[in-house]
Amino acid sequence: MAFRKFLPLFDRVLVERLAAETVTKGGIMLPEKSQGKVLQATVVAVGPGTTNKDGQVQPLSVKVGEKVLLPEYGGTKVILEDKDYFLFRDADILGKYVD
Amino acid sequence: MAFRKFLPLFDRVLVERLAAETVTKGGIMLPEKSQGKVLQATVVAVGPGTTNKDGQVQPLSVKVGEKVLLPEYGGTKVILEDKDYFLFRDADILGKYVD
Amino acid sequence: MAFRKFLPLFDRVLVERLAAETVTKGGIMLPEKSQGKVLQATVVAVGPGTTNKDGQVQPLSVKVGEKVLLPEYGGTKVILEDKDYFLFRDADILGKYVD
Amino acid sequence: MAFRKFLPLFDRVLVERLAAETVTKGGIMLPEKSQGKVLQATVVAVGPGTTNKDGQVQPLSVKVGEKVLLPEYGGTKVILEDKDYFLFRDADILGKYVD
Amino acid sequence: MAFRKFLPLFDRVLVERLAAETVTKGGIMLPEKSQGKVLQATVVAVGPGTTNKDGQVQPLSVKVGEKVLLPEYGGTKVILEDKDYFLFRDADILGKYVD
Amino acid sequence: MAFRKFLPLFDRVLVERLAAETVTKGGIMLPEKSQGKVLQATVVAVGPGTTNKDGQVQPLSVKVGEKVLLPEYGGTKVILEDKDYFLFRDADILGKYVD
Amino acid sequence: MAFRKFLPLFDRVLVERLAAETVTKGGIMLPEKSQGKVLQATVVAVGPGTTNKDGQVQPLSVKVGEKVLLPEYGGTKVILEDKDYFLFRDADILGKYVD
Repeated sequence: MAFRKFLPLFDRVLVERLAAETVTKGGIMLPEKSQGKVLQATVVAVGPGTTNKDGQVQPLSVKVGEKVLLPEYGGTKVILEDKDYFLFRDADILGKYVD
Repeated sequence: MAFRKFLPLFDRVLVERLAAETVTKGGIMLPEKSQGKVLQATVVAVGPGTTNKDGQVQPLSVKVGEKVLLPEYGGTKVILEDKDYFLFRDADILGKYVD
Repeated sequence: MAFRKFLPLFDRVLVERLAAETVTKGGIMLPEKSQGKVLQATVVAVGPGTTNKDGQVQPLSVKVGEKVLLPEYGGTKVILEDKDYFLFRDADILGKYVD
Repeated sequence: MAFRKFLPLFDRVLVERLAAETVTKGGIMLPEKSQGKVLQATVVAVGPGTTNKDGQVQPLSVKVGEKVLLPEYGGTKVILEDKDYFLFRDADILGKYVD
Repeated sequence: MAFRKFLPLFDRVLVERLAAETVTKGGIMLPEKSQGKVLQATVVAVGPGTTNKDGQVQPLSVKVGEKVLLPEYGGTKVILEDKDYFLFRDADILGKYVD
Repeated sequence: MAFRKFLPLFDRVLVERLAAETVTKGGIMLPEKSQGKVLQATVVAVGPGTTNKDGQVQPLSVKVGEKVLLPEYGGTKVILEDKDYFLFRDADILGKYVD
Repeated sequence: MAFRKFLPLFDRVLVERLAAETVTKGGIMLPEKSQGKVLQATVVAVGPGTTNKDGQVQPLSVKVGEKVLLPEYGGTKVILEDKDYFLFRDADILGKYVD
């Protein structure tokens, strides 16, 4: 398989939206009404962060494996190994769920 | 319950609007005329704040439990455990009430 | 009374417009023609100021009790205890009157 | 007289436009054709200047009493003691006349 | 041959899009539906990077030979020796593939 | 004569466009076709320059007496002693001619 | 001859587009279809560069005599001694050719 890993660049975060049914299994009851898009997702890969003007790298605020809440709009669809993923900027992710 | 806590990111503040009736119980008589939206709310969760270009984190100006005055426009609706919450940026919150 | 004090946030200033008649009592003869709005006001409460990128708080240029000249446009109406107040940014206030 | 002095805020400059006739008395022959507005004016009051991000106050480039050339557009009309004055930002004043 | 090497300037990256057929040879199955453009490419040449305000050069995040994922829009077509190449800003490249 | 000298403010430069005929006397043959405006001019007065955020004054890049090339658009007409002059920002002047 | 040298200001670069025929003499076969404009050019004169906010001059990234690739749009036409030249900002030049 030519491709094993996709690394987002700068402050981009690669996420996979939760499948609709798993969401209702006693978890957060998020009606699908926001244009049929599930807004919860799992972080699959994160970029290195951006360098501020003093050359310091500012790490991202989410880590691989965390559950996050996506905004309704924005994001770039990326197809990897026939599956849909989405790229969001770290700053656009609304929040994360901690157990 | 899979989810217990939702953490807003950066300078976002999670608020819950006061129920219309409690507002009138001798408190601030805020007529609902601003498009039927109650503009008072309680802070439910706050983000860590944003990092300025020198890497210093700038804390938010509101704390959990405080009563705040929301602007008429803006905010992102977030449904958690079937209840409506709203995410505002710290800088967009107009002010807070101190007893 | 549940509410005693309203604290504006950041660089916001809470003002109360002078009543139309007091203005004419030998004071500044400001014709009401600017869309029927009195442009003089008294400062009722001030925010803490904003933090510059070095973390220093920059105090506001007006104090509680001072008489200020408002711009014709802008400002956010806030109803507190059934009275109309207005929130302006410190930088938008045109000037102040010193006796 | 309730009001004696009006202090512009930040980098604002209060000016009074020269009366049309004095201008022609051997001085600069400025035809009135720029929408009937006299573009010469005298500085009546100046603000304290703005604070740069390091907290240093940057003084204005014009002083009270100086003769300045105004741009054709911009400026806010302010009526003080029944006379018309105008507020301009220091940076918008084109130049000054030195005898 | 007058020209042997083309050096992009600042933070520009010169890329060559992968030929459509090689992509399907067991590699990432990227349907061509995004307006018939292949979004994978190989980096052919990179600029020196931009200088931040302190005069430090900020190196690019991709190197010659790396496989990258391009955004659907943007980029400038450059014809060198009768072949099509494309110039993208480093910050616009979505991510890179690591074997 | 009430006025002897006009001082531009900040980074403004006062120029006088060359008379059309002198330009053709063996000098640069600049056809007048750019909307009938001569684009060569002589610098008549310069402002003190602007202060950068550290309070340092950044001098202008043209001096009084130099011949400069003006952009086709922009500039503010200023009439001094019945003659037309123009104010340009230092940064908008395209270049200068050195003998 | 009144004029011998034209100095661009700040970060401007004066270029002369290559004549259409020399380009095809075994060099880069650049079809003229980009609105009939040759995109290769030679650098004729460069400005001193711009001063960053700390007062340091940032030199340009191209030198006199180098062959550069121009963007399709932008640039200001300048006629010197009856010949057409063009002024571009250093940052807008796409790249340069090194033998």
